[in-house]
Amino acid sequence: MAWIEKYGHGGDLLTAQKQFGLVSQPLLDFSANINPLGPPPRVMQVLRDQLETIVHYPDPAQRKLKEKLSKRLGIGEEHLVIGNGAAECMALIILALQPKTVGVVYPCFSEYEKLSMAFGAEIKACFGKVEKHFKPELADLFALFDDVDLAFIGHPNNPTGVTYSEEELRAIAEQAEASNTFLVVDEAFIDFLPKNKQVTLMPDLANYKHIIFVRSMTKFYAIPGLRLGYAVSDPKIIERLQEKQVTWSVNQLALAAGEICLEELDYEEKTITLIEEQREYLKNLIEDRLGWFVFPGQANFLLVRLPGSILAEDLQWEMGKKGVMVRSCAMYPGLSLHDFRIAVRTKQENDELLATLQEVVEERKWRK
Amino acid sequence: MAWIEKYGHGGDLLTAQKQFGLVSQPLLDFSANINPLGPPPRVMQVLRDQLETIVHYPDPAQRKLKEKLSKRLGIGEEHLVIGNGAAECMALIILALQPKTVGVVYPCFSEYEKLSMAFGAEIKACFGKVEKHFKPELADLFALFDDVDLAFIGHPNNPTGVTYSEEELRAIAEQAEASNTFLVVDEAFIDFLPKNKQVTLMPDLANYKHIIFVRSMTKFYAIPGLRLGYAVSDPKIIERLQEKQVTWSVNQLALAAGEICLEELDYEEKTITLIEEQREYLKNLIEDRLGWFVFPGQANFLLVRLPGSILAEDLQWEMGKKGVMVRSCAMYPGLSLHDFRIAVRTKQENDELLATLQEVVEERKWRK
Repeated sequence: MAWIEKYGHGGDLLTAQKQFGLVSQPLLDFSANINPLGPPPRVMQVLRDQLETIVHYPDPAQRKLKEKLSKRLGIGEEHLVIGNGAAECMALIILALQPKTVGVVYPCFSEYEKLSMAFGAEIKACFGKVEKHFKPELADLFALFDDVDLAFIGHPNNPTGVTYSEEELRAIAEQAEASNTFLVVDEAFIDFLPKNKQVTLMPDLANYKHIIFVRSMTKFYAIPGLRLGYAVSDPKIIERLQEKQVTWSVNQLALAAGEICLEELDYEEKTITLIEEQREYLKNLIEDRLGWFVFPGQANFLLVRLPGSILAEDLQWEMGKKGVMVRSCAMYPGLSLHDFRIAVRTKQENDELLATLQEVVEERKWRK
Repeated sequence: MAWIEKYGHGGDLLTAQKQFGLVSQPLLDFSANINPLGPPPRVMQVLRDQLETIVHYPDPAQRKLKEKLSKRLGIGEEHLVIGNGAAECMALIILALQPKTVGVVYPCFSEYEKLSMAFGAEIKACFGKVEKHFKPELADLFALFDDVDLAFIGHPNNPTGVTYSEEELRAIAEQAEASNTFLVVDEAFIDFLPKNKQVTLMPDLANYKHIIFVRSMTKFYAIPGLRLGYAVSDPKIIERLQEKQVTWSVNQLALAAGEICLEELDYEEKTITLIEEQREYLKNLIEDRLGWFVFPGQANFLLVRLPGSILAEDLQWEMGKKGVMVRSCAMYPGLSLHDFRIAVRTKQENDELLATLQEVVEERKWRK
């Protein structure tokens, strides 16, 4: 069987098309965690209207977007660096802070490791245990901090959806300060949570000199093709990140889109409501109709464990042939061959996903 | 007087607007070396048609563009890395090859130094002399190679327009091989030269294991806002560059545009003819009407030396207030306070440039 995630991620429609022998690209992509509403309509309009501006260089200092983002987040511009996707922000962090050892909490987003190793750092890890739904013991995390120069945590974590309470986050951040460990809090998916669950220490930035928040605008605003993300930290750290950034790294259309995205408050609310409802709906469907275990994490995606008789790769393969992409999680350290991840999408798409899952189970005569 | 190139480059319209107190952004930009024809119309059409594809991640392996580019250049895909602008390609080179010392030939593009220093390399330099119109002695270049791990040359060189004969290039490349020095040949502007002057060793790639060619698609195809460039080298070097590249670094619209650009052969011819004619025309205008010295380099830009009584910054300031941007070259090591650079644009724009230059000379009562 061929490897769909040959580049380490979901959403690779071209590989999927080739591997699954499809005539066109897959119709339903549950493998990438993108807002199912698509980009805000006004963003598409502005991109159409401003397409001619690609004849000019992007603002090398991203001034307009930085100003709007700074207002929106309620932090000074000196706390902010805008990147060519959250992935570039993470690379800048590693390049600037040059950790010799990087700590991760398995299972987690593979880029933490990939980037750290690409730039010469050694990886150390602790594991969230399945019986705790992959939330690590704070004691394990603190022991990890003692061992590394920099650590990543996802909040919510991808692919498990693990989140922490404010109290836990404060304890984590304080321990990072105490042990002189840079702490990268990857909040790429935090915008999808209900407002009262969007727990972040960002407003208390001034108290934590070792913390760096990374956020994506790509996922929530459904513009992954454009690339846009940012990092928030102490001005001294931000300055070091900017020194490593390639000139004009963020393209003009991403900047233009970003400015509009921040004004789309209705779209934000609609997204959060949709995800909250559909997440519960999809979780129940899978548990009730298929009898599979859905981990109780938070985010716009679900981590599902298949019965021991079904391999996630087999499921991915069968679904792929029908033009529906799901993400096998077999390659995540800490997960099993029976784990897969799906994005939460619209009711109609979620229903189609379930119908296709049921079809596959039926055809392969998998027992529940 | 405020600094227009606060980010080290031309084409920064937002800074110009602020510094010159203009109501809108400057009307005529001669400070960035962009194709005056604007992007090929079919590129704009395709971008409009494919705007919806930003909802998907870009192909992390850039397969379609890589295939087309490889055919167009007549080299295997394993010789090719596509980047988020030529600037990213240069950064990847430094990150991958980790030179301790980097050689440059002053005056040259400031990013060579900026990137090298950002990633910890020490700069060593030789100078092209004014009486040789800034073309370095090969002996000086070879001595530099003995001193550094990696060297940059521009071909044609920015901002001087210096080019080398095929014989000279071969001697340079062989010396780099002999002294085990990586040689980056920056060909960002080579596409603008008449076909018979586009001298490159790229077809002989197999003979030079230390050479890396960098090209821009941003300038020739007038899409600097989108960011697109590539590097060509030995597959072992390309692999090392790719290891350092951030996932999805090249955005989807840049990839889509790039594929179309390569098919626009009429546009290419039209551009080359226009630049060849207008370069001569503009050079003659400046020499005949203003009596200023234009260096005889090749490229889609001209380096001009003002009389000793006129400062390039003053000229830039006066022109800027009238909405016309030129590039002061006062900050280039090896150049003087009296040097400025202008892009070659359409006849109408070049005429407007000259009229504005004459106006300024008149108003400031500068003697010729």
